[in-house]
Parts: sequence; C-alpha cells; structure tokens
Amino acid sequence: MADIIHRIGIKAPVSKVYNALSTVEGVADWWTKDTTGESKSGGTVKVLFRSPTGKELGTMQFEVTQLKPNQEVVWRFKSGPEEWLGTDVSFSLSQSGDYTMLMFGHKNWREPVEFMAHCSMKWATFLLSLKELVETGKGKPAPEDLKIDDWN
Amino acid sequence: MADIIHRIGIKAPVSKVYNALSTVEGVADWWTKDTTGESKSGGTVKVLFRSPTGKELGTMQFEVTQLKPNQEVVWRFKSGPEEWLGTDVSFSLSQSGDYTMLMFGHKNWREPVEFMAHCSMKWATFLLSLKELVETGKGKPAPEDLKIDDWN
Repeated sequence: MADIIHRIGIKAPVSKVYNALSTVEGVADWWTKDTTGESKSGGTVKVLFRSPTGKELGTMQFEVTQLKPNQEVVWRFKSGPEEWLGTDVSFSLSQSGDYTMLMFGHKNWREPVEFMAHCSMKWATFLLSLKELVETGKGKPAPEDLKIDDWN
Repeated sequence: MADIIHRIGIKAPVSKVYNALSTVEGVADWWTKDTTGESKSGGTVKVLFRSPTGKELGTMQFEVTQLKPNQEVVWRFKSGPEEWLGTDVSFSLSQSGDYTMLMFGHKNWREPVEFMAHCSMKWATFLLSLKELVETGKGKPAPEDLKIDDWN
C-alpha cells in the first residue's frame, strides 16, 4: 500500500474550509466545475474533468463516508481510474492561530505507480486552488486548473 | 518507510532540466538562492533557507550520490532536520515529445509524519518553480518561494 499525504495552511476560519470540502458547490469551486450529486453521509458525488477545449478527460464517483463538521471529510472512490478504486481521500482540519491546518491524504494505493506521482503533484495544485478559493474567493477548478505534465 | 513521489512535465530539452538539477547555480535558481558547495559525484552541497525578512529557517547538507547526464540526479541527506537524515532525493529524467518528464522521489522516511506531508506540498511548489525556471528563465527559489502553511 502507498499513500499521498500533503499539509497546507489556509488563513481562514475552519468553517469556511469545511464548507468548501463538504458541499457539492464548494468542491466545484476548487476541484472541478463539473461536480454533481449529494454530499451527505452515504451520498454519491460525481466529478468530471474536461480540458480547456471541452474534451472529456475522465470522470470518477465517490461515496462520502465521513462528514464531521469542521473536523473531517472522507471520500471512498467507487468508479474512475482503476488505480483509484477503493482508495480513500481524507481531509482533516484543525485551527492553529490564524490558520486552518489541513492534513490531506489519498490512501491505500495498491502500488506507488507513476500515475500516483502524477496525482500527488496534481492534488498539491488543487490544494493550492482550495487555499486561493477560501482566502480570496476564487479557486482554479478544472478546466481552469494548472496543467503540470503531458497527462493533465 | 514512506516515500514522497511527484511527476511533472517540463516543456524543454532534457539537457536544460538536467543542468538545473546538477549544478549549484541551477539549484540556487529554483530551490534556495543560498546554495553552495560542489555538485559533483561524492561532493557536498549545502542549502540554507531564509524567510522573506532574512531570518534563517534551516539548513541542510547533502552528498551528491548519482549524476547521470540527462538521466538521473540523486542526493543523500547528511545533515538537516532529523527526519531527513539518511533520506534520498532523486530526479529521473526522460524525453517524451515536447516534454522532459521528471519523476521525483524523496524516499526512505522512517514514518509518514506531519512534517513529511508539509515537505510533500513544499516539494510540489519547488518542482513548479523548477518548471517555471526552465520554461521561462525565472523560478521562485527561497526566500521568494510560495509559503504554504505556518511552518513555511
């Protein structure tokens, strides 16, 4: 098993960060604009990614497995790239002075494959998008996301 | 043991990327301006980090353990944060169309601690700095690096 872990600090109250992680509208503002479904415990959310020219790049569905207000959000991936099936994405929040500290994990990859290394970089840029969204009101969700390599 | 892995694509010939990784001047242009020492096989390089106001944040030394022209650079950390001692940072390069593909690893952490999660985010921003440097001529080395949390 292999895990991606990232830590980021966001200068905002924890409730604002939690809102951006726990609602469909919030996720659409930093990860991908095309986010639909029900972000409630046991609900399913679908995310679809397009290139800037509108070409569909991929789609995934996750079950919301944990929603602890202002503390934790966990997603379990049910469809999407084969390597993502059964993996968990978690966001753990805590307040530290002016910052909301966010510990991010994308855990239980079967192997540390090259695609995982791509996703690690890509998650870092999406966490920067989340930080920008909460601190300034505007993130960089797909298809306006930062392109990092020949895959996306 | 736990590893950080990232993948990034840089639109430039592999020799330009290798130069930015294999020379003291190159590293100073994307990681930290205060890079000194000898980047040759078996040589020691020292990197020092400062805040934008000039405060010293930390310093590390690594041995250059692998220099394969246009293919691979590996560093072994000899001093610095306790968690970094004995870890290896590697950069593996290959050409893919217009891109130089870079597989980055910071391997052999004893535990996946919170500081590793911080370093994972921070490495992602430094790899974006490397990409900017090689593609545009100007990176964001410390102390001009992007601050991501309350630690740096």
